[in-house]
Amino acid sequence: MNYHKYKRQYFLPPVKCMDWAEKDYVEKAPVWCSVDLRDGNQALVIPMNLQQKIEFFKLLTKIGFKEIEVGFPAASETEYTFIRTLIEEKLIPDDVTIQVLTQAREHIIKKTFEAVKGAKNVIIHVYNSTSLAQREQVFKKSKDEILKIAVKGAQLLKDLTEQAGENYRFEYSPESFTGTEPEYALEVCNAVLDVWKPQSDRKAIINLPVTVQHSMPHVYASQVEYICKNIKYRENVVISLHPHNDRGCGVADAEMGLLAGADRIEGTLFGNGERTGNADIVTIALNMYAQGVCPELDFSEMTEICEKYEGFTGMKINERSPYSGELVFAAFSGSHQDAIAKGMHWQEEKQPEHWTVPYLPIDPSDLGRNYDADVIRINSQSGKGGVGYILETKFGLNLPPKMREAMGYTAKAVSDHRQKELLPEEIFELFKKTFENTSSPLTVEETHFEKSENGVVAEIKSSFNQKPISVKASGNGSLNAVSNALKKAYGFQYEVVTYQEHALEKSSHARAIAYVGIQKPDGALAWGAGVHEDIIHASIDALVAAINNR
Amino acid sequence: MNYHKYKRQYFLPPVKCMDWAEKDYVEKAPVWCSVDLRDGNQALVIPMNLQQKIEFFKLLTKIGFKEIEVGFPAASETEYTFIRTLIEEKLIPDDVTIQVLTQAREHIIKKTFEAVKGAKNVIIHVYNSTSLAQREQVFKKSKDEILKIAVKGAQLLKDLTEQAGENYRFEYSPESFTGTEPEYALEVCNAVLDVWKPQSDRKAIINLPVTVQHSMPHVYASQVEYICKNIKYRENVVISLHPHNDRGCGVADAEMGLLAGADRIEGTLFGNGERTGNADIVTIALNMYAQGVCPELDFSEMTEICEKYEGFTGMKINERSPYSGELVFAAFSGSHQDAIAKGMHWQEEKQPEHWTVPYLPIDPSDLGRNYDADVIRINSQSGKGGVGYILETKFGLNLPPKMREAMGYTAKAVSDHRQKELLPEEIFELFKKTFENTSSPLTVEETHFEKSENGVVAEIKSSFNQKPISVKASGNGSLNAVSNALKKAYGFQYEVVTYQEHALEKSSHARAIAYVGIQKPDGALAWGAGVHEDIIHASIDALVAAINNR
Repeated sequence: MNYHKYKRQYFLPPVKCMDWAEKDYVEKAPVWCSVDLRDGNQALVIPMNLQQKIEFFKLLTKIGFKEIEVGFPAASETEYTFIRTLIEEKLIPDDVTIQVLTQAREHIIKKTFEAVKGAKNVIIHVYNSTSLAQREQVFKKSKDEILKIAVKGAQLLKDLTEQAGENYRFEYSPESFTGTEPEYALEVCNAVLDVWKPQSDRKAIINLPVTVQHSMPHVYASQVEYICKNIKYRENVVISLHPHNDRGCGVADAEMGLLAGADRIEGTLFGNGERTGNADIVTIALNMYAQGVCPELDFSEMTEICEKYEGFTGMKINERSPYSGELVFAAFSGSHQDAIAKGMHWQEEKQPEHWTVPYLPIDPSDLGRNYDADVIRINSQSGKGGVGYILETKFGLNLPPKMREAMGYTAKAVSDHRQKELLPEEIFELFKKTFENTSSPLTVEETHFEKSENGVVAEIKSSFNQKPISVKASGNGSLNAVSNALKKAYGFQYEVVTYQEHALEKSSHARAIAYVGIQKPDGALAWGAGVHEDIIHASIDALVAAINNR
Repeated sequence: MNYHKYKRQYFLPPVKCMDWAEKDYVEKAPVWCSVDLRDGNQALVIPMNLQQKIEFFKLLTKIGFKEIEVGFPAASETEYTFIRTLIEEKLIPDDVTIQVLTQAREHIIKKTFEAVKGAKNVIIHVYNSTSLAQREQVFKKSKDEILKIAVKGAQLLKDLTEQAGENYRFEYSPESFTGTEPEYALEVCNAVLDVWKPQSDRKAIINLPVTVQHSMPHVYASQVEYICKNIKYRENVVISLHPHNDRGCGVADAEMGLLAGADRIEGTLFGNGERTGNADIVTIALNMYAQGVCPELDFSEMTEICEKYEGFTGMKINERSPYSGELVFAAFSGSHQDAIAKGMHWQEEKQPEHWTVPYLPIDPSDLGRNYDADVIRINSQSGKGGVGYILETKFGLNLPPKMREAMGYTAKAVSDHRQKELLPEEIFELFKKTFENTSSPLTVEETHFEKSENGVVAEIKSSFNQKPISVKASGNGSLNAVSNALKKAYGFQYEVVTYQEHALEKSSHARAIAYVGIQKPDGALAWGAGVHEDIIHASIDALVAAINNR
């Protein structure tokens, strides 16, 4: 691969602009502007139809967007009709501003004004490309000529708005800002602002697009800081960012640009947009949320939002897309599962002020996700922690620690062998199959107990490899007596080293589960479990199962 | 959504560490370590089987990875068998080092050593978790106790390696580094290094994982810089990064961490890995490449790499994944297409030293991608630039600018109406259908020419709405004479304002194409084209088609 073919195409500001790096997080949500219906739509193989756009617009307002770019109405009939429908059917809430993109040409602006007639709040967004590459290759114009295009456009917008008696807000983008010399971009923006002379009650928006990502995010942040520090009418200008994602750093560009002084982010849900997409507003907003900052957008119904988005756009949300992807809360690894399970217990017990569960930067239930289905998932990479957690939370089984380990190895081996994930029901079935075997080779058909001086005498009828036998033995309790009887009958060599039991349901007729661990002469452990309304019966079943598992 | 539930869980270094921000790009490729077969594999719903792992390993060495983490051999039979197979079947190139993960427990380390026996170059990677959250919730141990676990593990690794007479390299990770106080992480790492006492011929690796992304990337970079500045044995220590992607900033973490002094990146292809995945090495490497820095990895056969990756892992590469996604070079928007077409022309004409085509940060053909199929794609968002580019590059048609505009509107409207993308063949068919109609309502069946004093006299037989007529007229050339004859016969009102022609093929029997633009009294233009071996015939066909298009 011939890397000599490339060079860095960005330009550093003339002075160092790294004050932003003194801050370590975004303290306040920016003004969000969704460009899903314009930039996002423009990048779809099949752009959205009217009905899809209307539904998408409703979804965006429900999430809480107050500024929404709805299209380039002069450019296509579908976009024009969409905007007219929004207005005529009164689908735009009073506190929502629609934004339309236009080129600075008279007939196009007039058509744009026709499109937005009757809307309460409108931003007219005008742009021209300012990068070195586009000046040279596309427009074949000098810096001065390109600046004049911007100024002429700004003037035309102002004049036609005044003529029309409207009070629209204006936005200007030096398109391909990231390939433009910052001093020159500043000069162009200031020239545009000199035309508009923004006021505090009608601020202008200067949008600094990462049309193509050419640099690392801290370089972009320093460019943004340079503009913020030197732009005229700063108090009446909203600095907006519009990052794309060519280098996989759209989110970082947006966040660092905010630290650098920007006030507003243009982006899309799940980062849809041309080529590698736009900055993903879902991620940026929830990154704030996960640090305790109010994002001013509501993603609590994430599953519904994802489904609608995929339906409207025909795009598929990646399984690893932050906060939204199918697998982003999944822990298959044993050690992660163990830590999550412990963290969740800690959360329940201590009720701490803040969420700090390991490996889960955000509580999945905040986004409507489900612990059982989404978080702890079992395959050959998993271990005792995850399996124990599922048996406990989903089926109410609280296994002794060493038995949990045995169950973990069992599940891992089955998943490794079958090469598939084990669902909770399958794990429960596997548990029962593995640890509740009271039928082969040993069964105990009948037990009778009598109190004796030192404890209990048990008389049992049992079979081993289908050979029935009756035998009697004493012990310090029922289980101990049965165990002694079995040892007497068959010469088994083991010690009962663990016995635990707990109720399975909460009523008074509840069944109980008993767990028995026996240790063989070689030190190895074997485990059994038994479930019954009578706890004695349950414990004998557990013992029999443990013996069958030796 | 209750954002009060969260707090920032990271810790800033005790002193400001922002020297890294003086640099604006990564000047040199790091040591790359692929963790696809361990961290990536662990995050799959269905982990890879033996054959898939072997093929994936071969793919990684072909791309150029020199360090590859191959598994946690003591943890599962499949991983153990995989590593033995690599070694016994001599699949590891001499210049490739395999890396294995282990916990610091004697029987696990011994099993690990068995697994790697016979391998030429091995890194043994040991870790324990050091974050505040894990110390409190999972291990319930003090800082001092956690440090002792690390030191004990380091000592055990050293002792058992010496006992085994091996010369393995060591790597230590303070797992959950990003939730650990930097001073404490430093203390633990230095204590581990004090045990290992790394030498220049056997450097130790200290890996600083972003186990969970809690902070913005510049915070991580400052943590990395702090460790780099204060770690002992610095010259004999390789500082490695292992970023995850919870905040969508895995790539930015890796790149800024490199500026901050790190030497090595652990990551995966396409960012596979637990939850939101790992840092995507494809993106990081090609980000360097696109800035003129040698990435030391070869992605020129990207399509094959993508197909294999998807086959092995069962994961789908997102359509917008930088450099690799299906749509990342696609331009549907008219203005982008126009700029790309002009940029490509400029590239051909000027043969500049560097690639600077607008909207294409990298030449798609460097990654084995195809301009026609991948870049200029036509739907309702497209315009003259894209349609013109496709007709020119794929079918050799060089339309007059205004005709290109008309063709752009036609294609846009058809795509808008049909709600589908138009493929190149469909655009060509649409062009022919729209601009080569010589059959209705007007046809010209016969033409005879005679030279006259002032030019040419044409005698034509033609039909209009199936009514045949013969007529004769003169003109300054053949086309002009035919045009005058048609005006005379039917009273048409128009002026021929554009006439262009060019050869369609390069042989001497080549066909030519003629384009004719006529202007009606109201100023509107209509267009026609004609294709024929005889250029006069082609131009008359073009005129007839233009008239039929009025």
